[in-house]
Amino acid sequence: MPDRITVIENILSKNDQIASENRALFDQAGVFTLNIMASPGAGKTSLIEITIKKLTKSLQIAVVDGDIATSIDADRVAAVGATAIQINTGGECHLDAAMLNNELPKLNLSDLNLLIVENVGNLICPASFQLGTHKSILIASIPEGDDKPYKYPGMYSGVDALVINKIDLLPYVPFDMDYFIRGVEILNPGLVTFPLSCMTLDGIEDWLNWLLKLIKYE
Amino acid sequence: MPDRITVIENILSKNDQIASENRALFDQAGVFTLNIMASPGAGKTSLIEITIKKLTKSLQIAVVDGDIATSIDADRVAAVGATAIQINTGGECHLDAAMLNNELPKLNLSDLNLLIVENVGNLICPASFQLGTHKSILIASIPEGDDKPYKYPGMYSGVDALVINKIDLLPYVPFDMDYFIRGVEILNPGLVTFPLSCMTLDGIEDWLNWLLKLIKYE
Repeated sequence: MPDRITVIENILSKNDQIASENRALFDQAGVFTLNIMASPGAGKTSLIEITIKKLTKSLQIAVVDGDIATSIDADRVAAVGATAIQINTGGECHLDAAMLNNELPKLNLSDLNLLIVENVGNLICPASFQLGTHKSILIASIPEGDDKPYKYPGMYSGVDALVINKIDLLPYVPFDMDYFIRGVEILNPGLVTFPLSCMTLDGIEDWLNWLLKLIKYE
Repeated sequence: MPDRITVIENILSKNDQIASENRALFDQAGVFTLNIMASPGAGKTSLIEITIKKLTKSLQIAVVDGDIATSIDADRVAAVGATAIQINTGGECHLDAAMLNNELPKLNLSDLNLLIVENVGNLICPASFQLGTHKSILIASIPEGDDKPYKYPGMYSGVDALVINKIDLLPYVPFDMDYFIRGVEILNPGLVTFPLSCMTLDGIEDWLNWLLKLIKYE
């Protein structure tokens, strides 16, 4: 019987292969794709809602929402006008490339400009499973505390951009931004960051402009 | 080659066996034990710090801290006067019974009144792995949002008490307490809850009184 490490390595290798197939489908269709990750309640769905509201006039957007249970997130996303597909993972703590691949036939990819995948709320497991998306985005949240880069290095080191959400709560919680950013820089030097608030919309324009540039040029 | 489900079942069955061994060691030594779980940044270490500060005069307390990386949590706990052991899980998203079992020889269990295990910050994976502790505590956090019971049913249904931390942030974030509690009640009817703030210390006495009663009578 193979040991646990071998089983995990086989799973990850198979996952990478399907992720490559996903990427090929995205590139063929000319759709730009994001994998948004964060711990529970950091604001993934809120950021996606705002992004859709602001860009839906000029872009065709779809969202694939991953959750253990419920269609709360897909319902929220659909309510602001995007095509939304909910994946319920059962007990699984992350999306994998095959789960995403299974949903792609439901979307007309070549009609889309942007496909956003909202991963399961978890700062650990999603980091190990490539989905084939073009960019990985991590959302940190001010009330989570400033030590998270140090404690979840796998997640912080593997992403292409970092949204720092809930900056409106900075006056009410202890959060040393310099300490936080030092941790980020150790793991992922030069990582682009977007401090913002999905409540007040402060900082949202910088995020949208960055995203629009990527959609245009990738 | 066994399939993934079989491998996972084997792992969980082996884990339950070691959890029973842990429980036997705790009972033999007469030490009451807690497994504290939550998503990243909900306030596990803060609640443990306060619990130690308030009870350390009358009780001998030790803490085993689980994290992917760093000894930040164990250092915080040691700073307030408890014996603290840090487990770094590497990539693992939860503690398991064997990891805890490995650390027990470092503690003089029969000298202790209370052993607190702080699990890895994650609302999914720790729910599947019994550690052998007497009670499982979940900490929810107001800024995480009121939909978490619905989205993480495995975690909410499997615990013996629920701490609702950061109630001082209620004026600044959208959080419908009735909706939240309805979700908790569906999954875990009659679950004892402790709304509190580790910042202002509001509500802390109820938590401490509940804990003291358990330590006395279990």
